[in-house]
Amino acid sequence: MQYPSRILEKAVDEISQLPGIGKRTALRLALQMLKKPTSQTENLAKSLVSLVNDIKYCKKCHAICDSELCDVCSNPMRNHDLICVVEDIRDVMAIENTSQYKGVYHVLGGKISPMDGIGPQQLKIDSLVKRAADAKEIILALSSTMEGDTTMFYLYKVLKDTEITLTTIARGIGIGDELEYTDEVTLVQSIQRRVPYAASLSN
Amino acid sequence: MQYPSRILEKAVDEISQLPGIGKRTALRLALQMLKKPTSQTENLAKSLVSLVNDIKYCKKCHAICDSELCDVCSNPMRNHDLICVVEDIRDVMAIENTSQYKGVYHVLGGKISPMDGIGPQQLKIDSLVKRAADAKEIILALSSTMEGDTTMFYLYKVLKDTEITLTTIARGIGIGDELEYTDEVTLVQSIQRRVPYAASLSN
Repeated sequence: MQYPSRILEKAVDEISQLPGIGKRTALRLALQMLKKPTSQTENLAKSLVSLVNDIKYCKKCHAICDSELCDVCSNPMRNHDLICVVEDIRDVMAIENTSQYKGVYHVLGGKISPMDGIGPQQLKIDSLVKRAADAKEIILALSSTMEGDTTMFYLYKVLKDTEITLTTIARGIGIGDELEYTDEVTLVQSIQRRVPYAASLSN
Repeated sequence: MQYPSRILEKAVDEISQLPGIGKRTALRLALQMLKKPTSQTENLAKSLVSLVNDIKYCKKCHAICDSELCDVCSNPMRNHDLICVVEDIRDVMAIENTSQYKGVYHVLGGKISPMDGIGPQQLKIDSLVKRAADAKEIILALSSTMEGDTTMFYLYKVLKDTEITLTTIARGIGIGDELEYTDEVTLVQSIQRRVPYAASLSN
């Protein structure tokens, strides 16, 4: 595609480097920016620069935050003996949104995925092992995929000889879901992992 | 949604003001930027600021360009008697990409659309009428929608008393399209607007 302007072409090139945004969408976005007040795009540019330069990661749990420690880790009301291991900050946000979990987190920063060149060294596993010494329970809350399962198994191997209780989030049919629309694997597992009915009443 | 960081929240707010990008996509983009080298996002920010501040519009045809006159308007080899009226720069790019059109353009900057508050005054119609005095033919190449048809009819009313030849691009079934998959309106119109077979051979 020939662009009528070098400046436009440069902007389209830069925008289309964002994941999931192709040249066509990038051009549409660039042209929309030209229709909006200049200040709006300048503010966007400023906040992007601030994002990549000023953002901090919690020294303890590696979650994104604005200070040395995140709000969860610095909160004395949270249960610091209970650590929930998640893949990234979006999982923390999703769990925090429920306002039900009272423990703390540990953000791995990804899952073990040799295809993407991500091994245990690329993840925050060493610091988890160090933190684990002071904790009573670690909840492995990674996604139920090949990579998630591999990562959880790796963490299990690393932590199984400690005193710590290792748990994983419950897998099964979602609350409100209908059986007939559930995928086969989940359905089979939900029967294999059945729990006493009386136990389910206590939740 | 509670964000763990003000800086992240600000960035997500700014990104999600782009058309077609919601909060969730904005968050995904922001987190991806944090995984990429800082320089990449800084370059993106720079090119956006440059886009909205440094871009120029051709004085003659209002197309986006880097100088006073666009490459087409400043090219003496183009036929300046033939003006193709289009909605926006993307249409110019699409036609230029074919390398077949030898005339010049006029970018209206939109279509008459009272619902969006766009009337003839918001479009570059006055300057088209001025340019028309020196031209022999004007091709109306707007999209075949309610707004496009309205805009073309308005231009027809404005220009019909001049010496100029007013044409519109051919409507019909696309080259290579199959009749059975063509929408009804196009099919009906393609029969009503049928042309002598011998005339179609000359193209």
